[in-house]
Amino acid sequence: MNLVARLAEIVGTNHCLTDPDLRASYETDWTRRWSGPALAVVRPGSTDEVAAVLRACADAGVGVVPQGGNTGLVGGSVPRDGEVVLSLRRLDAIEEVDAGAGEMTAGAGVTLAAAQSAARAAGWEVGVDFGARDTATIGGMVATNAGGVNVLRHGAMRRQVGGFEAVLADGTVLRRLPGMPKDNTGYDIGGLLAGSEGTLAVVSRVGLRLVPRLARRAVGVIGVDAAADAVAAAGRLRRELGSLLALELFTDDGLELVMRHASAAPPFDRRPMYLLIEAGSDEADPTDDLAAALNEIGAGEAAVVASDPTGRDRLWQLRERHTEAMNAEGVPHKLDVSVPLTRYAELVERAPEAVRAVDPAARTIVYGHIADGNLHVNVLGPPPDDERVDDAVFGLVLELGGSVSAEHGIGVAKVDWLIRDRGEAAVSAMGAIKRAWDPAGILNPGVIFRNAA
Amino acid sequence: MNLVARLAEIVGTNHCLTDPDLRASYETDWTRRWSGPALAVVRPGSTDEVAAVLRACADAGVGVVPQGGNTGLVGGSVPRDGEVVLSLRRLDAIEEVDAGAGEMTAGAGVTLAAAQSAARAAGWEVGVDFGARDTATIGGMVATNAGGVNVLRHGAMRRQVGGFEAVLADGTVLRRLPGMPKDNTGYDIGGLLAGSEGTLAVVSRVGLRLVPRLARRAVGVIGVDAAADAVAAAGRLRRELGSLLALELFTDDGLELVMRHASAAPPFDRRPMYLLIEAGSDEADPTDDLAAALNEIGAGEAAVVASDPTGRDRLWQLRERHTEAMNAEGVPHKLDVSVPLTRYAELVERAPEAVRAVDPAARTIVYGHIADGNLHVNVLGPPPDDERVDDAVFGLVLELGGSVSAEHGIGVAKVDWLIRDRGEAAVSAMGAIKRAWDPAGILNPGVIFRNAA
Repeated sequence: MNLVARLAEIVGTNHCLTDPDLRASYETDWTRRWSGPALAVVRPGSTDEVAAVLRACADAGVGVVPQGGNTGLVGGSVPRDGEVVLSLRRLDAIEEVDAGAGEMTAGAGVTLAAAQSAARAAGWEVGVDFGARDTATIGGMVATNAGGVNVLRHGAMRRQVGGFEAVLADGTVLRRLPGMPKDNTGYDIGGLLAGSEGTLAVVSRVGLRLVPRLARRAVGVIGVDAAADAVAAAGRLRRELGSLLALELFTDDGLELVMRHASAAPPFDRRPMYLLIEAGSDEADPTDDLAAALNEIGAGEAAVVASDPTGRDRLWQLRERHTEAMNAEGVPHKLDVSVPLTRYAELVERAPEAVRAVDPAARTIVYGHIADGNLHVNVLGPPPDDERVDDAVFGLVLELGGSVSAEHGIGVAKVDWLIRDRGEAAVSAMGAIKRAWDPAGILNPGVIFRNAA
Repeated sequence: MNLVARLAEIVGTNHCLTDPDLRASYETDWTRRWSGPALAVVRPGSTDEVAAVLRACADAGVGVVPQGGNTGLVGGSVPRDGEVVLSLRRLDAIEEVDAGAGEMTAGAGVTLAAAQSAARAAGWEVGVDFGARDTATIGGMVATNAGGVNVLRHGAMRRQVGGFEAVLADGTVLRRLPGMPKDNTGYDIGGLLAGSEGTLAVVSRVGLRLVPRLARRAVGVIGVDAAADAVAAAGRLRRELGSLLALELFTDDGLELVMRHASAAPPFDRRPMYLLIEAGSDEADPTDDLAAALNEIGAGEAAVVASDPTGRDRLWQLRERHTEAMNAEGVPHKLDVSVPLTRYAELVERAPEAVRAVDPAARTIVYGHIADGNLHVNVLGPPPDDERVDDAVFGLVLELGGSVSAEHGIGVAKVDWLIRDRGEAAVSAMGAIKRAWDPAGILNPGVIFRNAA
């Protein structure tokens, strides 16, 4: 029996897609930058079926590309060259929400929005949130260690993982569910799978640790004159404002674009840079604390605070509409980098210079999660396949001891940069784990490592 | 040249200890339960020397036991059979405290107390704290993923690791310092090293992420009638009291012992069980919030709250003096286990029954970190080498889907239980990583795995 016939037998003919029209949406990512042909798309309905699919592909020596919501940005969830796409979306059961313990066991295919909804119904919240919530899946979020705006408070996805079920390349199922907050029994497999981008195992179920709902919110924006001032303010706010939930940097260049395309008007005086600060609490209204903290760091006149939903939203729009405003101007190069916090101000100041040095006509718009050392560097002007600006920014990041991928992962997009960033020794140590668990290189070949086996 | 001569050349004769008197304190752990002879004790003064020591031992095929403060409880940091003990204590430099970023780079040999002191001087705090703070080292705390009473707020040691420097068995140095809060460049090596108990690499430096100081504290104790009530109260407090810092369970049997041996008197009516609740904030005094939360969960008369240092300390003593009170009665079996939170009440109720079933004369005193699912089961009566009670408790824990080691690790003490707990497939997956990084089984042989190579 050939592989496709065997796969159809495992998951059912309806869930083994070979027709090009049916395969199409699984073969291209949502940026349309990454795509490739799949031998077939299989949609298993259980962990046992996932295991059987992996065994069949291993027997046939055919690569497997695990796929959740396919919202990644680095080409890690679409086929490259005739692999089998293993879609986890049918594993969409929320099996258990324990309102007392604040835990939830969810299938890999549960969307973030569905998980949030179930968590809220039980009086809790999922610790990670971002824009693609209606499509991104819990399994994919674990596999990519997804981040977002609340990482400074709750951590990225790795920290939300209390337990896991995952299938190794040979079909072996590893299971630790629902898992325990404290569990020092050998290596942290759940943590290792988080961020491994489908190269070590296929995550099939997740035991999520939920976080308290922070129903009371306040949002402030302050203006500053330079990146160093923003970093200093961020450090003090992190230390002194316990209810801190988000801390976002953006610049007047970005605000200018937002005002032009999204007709948003800022309720404060224009300055070279801005910090958006959100405070959240489950108890007292954090507005007074936020206002006091902003006053204490000397924000003075250039500060505004909103407590009501409309006012908060209006301030958030100034930051969130950057993407839309930039897209209206062209197709930006979107670079997601981080540096040690001590070098953050330097990165903010020097990234536009580094871009101008290779393309004087390019426009650089930066914004980012300042408490995480994470900056999104967006470059308008150069064509998408012009890698000089990417190289210039990544080169600067490495000079500052930073990371070429803060949130998005390596995928196929940054494989060469991974070695330049982490060095041969570290990548070789990672590769040794990959070979130990997947000697034939079945799982997501070409992702993270140039040559899996 | 023989190995000892080569080691002396690397670290200097003064720091290569072969005299039995000089070796002695490195060869026995502080419980005196675990000990063995070392070929030599070496005390390198730099990462380069650590690497050279590992290369020399690898060449000679001699095992290496990394050692920090030697405060572990499972035999993981003392030699078994003529290994070289690699003491990291001389790497005790605090190289950098960044007060703005809330980060510190510290040598593996820095004690927790020294790190705390440096963090506080910069306006921050180390997220993990426990009694052995004057001796336990940062490197050892990472290697064992140390926990303590504030895990529910700040996480265990793995979560404090922002960056790392570590030396592989072949002397290769991996370095990511100071590290970034967000860094999705391949596998999470720092997180994998945390809890690997010296079997994968020797941690030589750590980039610690600090947490805000919580200078304002309040402590409460409430009485409850049964473990299920304690679990329900803990769940509500975790959800509704954002300033929650510690949540400890103890029983009236334990309190009885504390009153007898430590002459402490409880300022509340006696009940079968108690919850100690600590709230901490960097802003407003959390006393009112704590009192309101305790009122809301219906603690009523059986509740007391203290805000002043003396009153807080008096309440904490009721929990902290359990160890001292038990030691006055004999040498207890100390079992450190966790279960999913949904099974915690059952564990609390059934652990004493499971012990009585194998030894009707034994007394079981339990207490623990309830929000972490972590229970310390202490058994007085049976001689130290009588493993029936350990087996009975571990058996119950596995029946409840729990972990045989919440905080202490596997060491050599729980190697057999690891397989019964995690299963052959998971331990085999861990073993594959061990063999990939340390094929000759040089690093801490006999720890976690029965046979390293």
